[in-house]
Amino acid sequence: MKVIELKMTVTDSNDRDAETLRRELGERGIFLINLMSAPGSGKTTLISRTITDLAGRAKIAVMEADIASDVDAERISALGAESIQVHTDGMCHMDAGMTRAGLDGMDFSGGEIVFLENVGNLICPAEFDTGAHRNVMILSVPEGDDKPLKYPLMFQTSDALVITKMDAAPYFDFDLGAVIRRAKALNPGIRIFPVSAKTGEGMSEWESYILSEREDG
Amino acid sequence: MKVIELKMTVTDSNDRDAETLRRELGERGIFLINLMSAPGSGKTTLISRTITDLAGRAKIAVMEADIASDVDAERISALGAESIQVHTDGMCHMDAGMTRAGLDGMDFSGGEIVFLENVGNLICPAEFDTGAHRNVMILSVPEGDDKPLKYPLMFQTSDALVITKMDAAPYFDFDLGAVIRRAKALNPGIRIFPVSAKTGEGMSEWESYILSEREDG
Repeated sequence: MKVIELKMTVTDSNDRDAETLRRELGERGIFLINLMSAPGSGKTTLISRTITDLAGRAKIAVMEADIASDVDAERISALGAESIQVHTDGMCHMDAGMTRAGLDGMDFSGGEIVFLENVGNLICPAEFDTGAHRNVMILSVPEGDDKPLKYPLMFQTSDALVITKMDAAPYFDFDLGAVIRRAKALNPGIRIFPVSAKTGEGMSEWESYILSEREDG
Repeated sequence: MKVIELKMTVTDSNDRDAETLRRELGERGIFLINLMSAPGSGKTTLISRTITDLAGRAKIAVMEADIASDVDAERISALGAESIQVHTDGMCHMDAGMTRAGLDGMDFSGGEIVFLENVGNLICPAEFDTGAHRNVMILSVPEGDDKPLKYPLMFQTSDALVITKMDAAPYFDFDLGAVIRRAKALNPGIRIFPVSAKTGEGMSEWESYILSEREDG
């Protein structure tokens, strides 16, 4: 498991760089999914369960982006999956150049699904195209059902919303119907997957979505 | 309840502006506490319970900073407390000039404790001195005990750490001892208050801390 220290790249050309990266990855048979969420939403747990569930059906690799530490990449590496930890030099997002630099440090044989676990943050990551083929937002039940009201751009730029920690719903005031209604008001086409990586609830729908989106390219 | 749209101020002079604001507020008998956390950590719920518990013992006013929406300020306003909502023009933090602009929109009679509920984010807010007399970080149990490893600056710049949603601890793998150990390794003087605003657990210790810190100025 490697650790790479990144520097921010020039952002004027980020949208163009992202398009180029997306096309190149497609040509190499690599499908990149950008996962964005607040800190502590359970991204790494969701990825870990997805890797285990899809073992034998999909090769999954993971890029962990954080300000500091490599605890997440260690968890993924322990599952036997290709993983890399990148540090963002204090920045609260990944851009296309940073994503490319991280991917360059990974070993691929082709056909991989790569999860980019973006920095835990509901603001900055939504503003930068990483070059991913799909953007997926994670919202955990304990964060509350008002998040679409407070962080609209994140919901608008995501292709799918995974609602994690559904097993904890009985212990929190969380109105799933309100979240779905608010998310769809911002982004009518967004796909929504309520899941629990602990109990397995909803995981097969989420995993089928990933596999079918990869087919679509 | 007012809503103010802010623009980012010049940051070269932020540290100096923050010192000036802190001194001026002290002269007016206003004690400003900057609350920082990830989205959904329960800041507004903590503030609401604190206002109710300290009714008659302290005048509490609240500045809510968000990218969008005014749902938090509405909640505070419903308690009868002076409150203002500021929007940060897409920025993930408050600086001293923005804080001053928000305070200028509020009505004070003197002797207030003002909570600044900073933008939900564990990165950018730690980098900007708002002019507050104390910085307090909120970490909720569902976010996990690894946060000091991933967001060290936030723990280093905070005078106190409030650990919220302790009533949910039985449903999550959360090692309170590990959080305390990791936080104190980064910041030996940090005060730590495990609380539940739902059950009231730990609230009196937190509230006594606020009142005594105001005395210290």
